[in-house]
Amino acid sequence: MPEKLVRINRERPTGGRPVLLAIAGDSAAGKTTLTAGLVAALGPDRCVSLCTDDYHRYDREERRGLPFTALHPDCNHVDIMEQHLQLLATGQPVLKPVYDHATGRLARPERVEPNEFVIVEGLLPLHTKLARACFDVTVYLDPAEEIRRSWKVARDTRKRGYTEEQVLVEMGRREAESAAWIHPQRQHADIVVRFAPIPGRNDPPETPLSAELMLRPSIRHPDLAAASGRTMHLKLERDCDGRPVDTLHIHGYVPREESVALEKAIWHLIGEPGGAAPDGLGRLGPDARSEPLAITQMILLHHLLEAAR
Amino acid sequence: MPEKLVRINRERPTGGRPVLLAIAGDSAAGKTTLTAGLVAALGPDRCVSLCTDDYHRYDREERRGLPFTALHPDCNHVDIMEQHLQLLATGQPVLKPVYDHATGRLARPERVEPNEFVIVEGLLPLHTKLARACFDVTVYLDPAEEIRRSWKVARDTRKRGYTEEQVLVEMGRREAESAAWIHPQRQHADIVVRFAPIPGRNDPPETPLSAELMLRPSIRHPDLAAASGRTMHLKLERDCDGRPVDTLHIHGYVPREESVALEKAIWHLIGEPGGAAPDGLGRLGPDARSEPLAITQMILLHHLLEAAR
Repeated sequence: MPEKLVRINRERPTGGRPVLLAIAGDSAAGKTTLTAGLVAALGPDRCVSLCTDDYHRYDREERRGLPFTALHPDCNHVDIMEQHLQLLATGQPVLKPVYDHATGRLARPERVEPNEFVIVEGLLPLHTKLARACFDVTVYLDPAEEIRRSWKVARDTRKRGYTEEQVLVEMGRREAESAAWIHPQRQHADIVVRFAPIPGRNDPPETPLSAELMLRPSIRHPDLAAASGRTMHLKLERDCDGRPVDTLHIHGYVPREESVALEKAIWHLIGEPGGAAPDGLGRLGPDARSEPLAITQMILLHHLLEAAR
Repeated sequence: MPEKLVRINRERPTGGRPVLLAIAGDSAAGKTTLTAGLVAALGPDRCVSLCTDDYHRYDREERRGLPFTALHPDCNHVDIMEQHLQLLATGQPVLKPVYDHATGRLARPERVEPNEFVIVEGLLPLHTKLARACFDVTVYLDPAEEIRRSWKVARDTRKRGYTEEQVLVEMGRREAESAAWIHPQRQHADIVVRFAPIPGRNDPPETPLSAELMLRPSIRHPDLAAASGRTMHLKLERDCDGRPVDTLHIHGYVPREESVALEKAIWHLIGEPGGAAPDGLGRLGPDARSEPLAITQMILLHHLLEAAR
C-alpha cells in the first residue's frame, strides 16, 4: 500500500461513513479493469469492491425462458441493490447475493463489510435516483462500440465459455435493452469515460487507445489546465443534451515518456507534492498498460481522496 | 382461507406495516409445527414465514472445524438478521440467505416480501434487543427436555439423514451452548409454551401431551378466566425469576369432546362470536392432532389479529 496515501488521508476520522464510487457501463466496457487499478492504488485493505451483476434475479437457465436479457431492470433485484447501497453508505455490512459468471448460476451470498472506499461497478448502479444518491462520485464507461465489441468477444470466449458467434448473437439481442436501460445512466455520471481511437487519425493498429473524459460540473474537478499540452488538453464543450461540460482529451499516440511526465505533473497537482504516483495505475493485464487509463484512474483517485477528507 | 378472518380484519388499512411474530426455541422444540397451523388458519396468502437458521454463517462442512455449534451467535449473521427484521417490519422486501438442512449447505438466497403477517421462527430470533424490538408478539417454545429429545431424534433421522446416535452426540455437544444462548431468550418472550406430560399423573403412554402457557404481562392477554374448567385453568404464579405471570394449564388427558367444546368457547371469547374456529389448528401431521396445540395457536391467532387491528 502506498505510504503517502495513508498520510494524505490520516486526518480522516476513523468510523466515518465510507466513500462510494459508482462505475456504470455496459458489459465489457472496462469496469473491472478500471476498478482493479483504483483498488491497487488505494490499497486493498482500505477498499471493498462489488459488482451489481450479483443482483441478477434469475440465473442463466431461467433467463432463457424470459422476454428480456440480464440488462433489464426487471431481471435484477434493483430495490435490494438500493437497500444494500444505502446500508453500505451508512457503514453497515450486507449479505450480498452472488452471481457466478462462469457457471451462470446464483450461489451462496457473501458478507460485505463497508471499508473506507466502496467501489460499486456494474450494469445498473445508476439506474434509480435512490441508488445514485448513495454515491459520492459516479462514472459511466462509454467506450467506442467497436472497441467494446472486441473486448467482449475476447473476454467472453476466454473466461465465460462462449463461442465468438454466441457472443455476437447475444450482443445483438441486448442492443435495444442496452439503449433503453444502460446508456441513459450516462447523463447521471459526474464523469463519462470514453476509450476510442482518435477519429480522423491514421495511427498504426498497435497505437494505444485515447481517452476522452467528460467532466460534469456536478462535482468539483481539479484544475488541469496547467497540465495541458500535447498529451492532454481540456476543452469547454456541450454534451449531446446541450449541457456545458469540460472534456479532457488524453492522447494515446504520444510517446510513453511524455505520458509519464504528464502523470507526474498531474500527481503533483492533485496528490501530495513530491510523492510518486501509486503503483497499479494503468494496468491492462500482466504485461500491458495504458497511460490514458492511468491518468483517468489518477483523476478518480483524486476525487475519492477528496471525498474522504 | 377462513372467510371470517378476512372479515375480522377488514378494517385494517392496506399498506400498513406487517405484524411480526417471533417463535424462538431450541432445535426440534416444535417451531415449524406451531407456525404451520398459524399460517393455515390465517391463510397462506396473508402470511410469510421464515426461519432464522438461514442466517447460519458457516455450512455444515465449515462448522466441523469450528469450536462452536450452529447455536452460537458467532455462528450466525445476527446483525444481518436484525437488519432484515427491521426491513420487513417496515414493509420492505429482503433477499434472505438460504440454509439447506437436508444438505447442510448454504444456497442461493430468496426474496421475501413482507405480508400482513410475518412469522419468524428459529434458534435466535430474540437474541438481541434490536431484533426483539421488531416483533409485535414473541413466543418461546420450551418443551420438556425428554420430549424435545424424542422429537429431535425422530425428525433428524427421518428428514435430515442422521443416525439416532449421531443426533444424541450432537445434542450432547450442543447442551452448553443451548443453555448459554437459546434458553436465555425465554425471559424475553411474551408467551412461553411448554408441552409436557403432567408430572405426577400416571396417564397411559398414548395420552396427548398437556401444554402450559406462561402469559407474561408484557402484552395484553384475552380474559380466559371464563373458559376455565377441567380442560384448562389459569393460575397466578411467579416465574423462576420471581416475576408475576399467569399460567394457563391445558390438559391433554381430557376426552376430545371436552377440548373441542373448550376451543369453541375460546373462539367465542376471542374470535368473532358465532363463527367457527379456522381449519388447520392443532395439526401435528397427516392424521395426528393435539387439542392443547390448537388452543395455543388460537391464543396466538388472537394476538396476531389484535396487533393487526
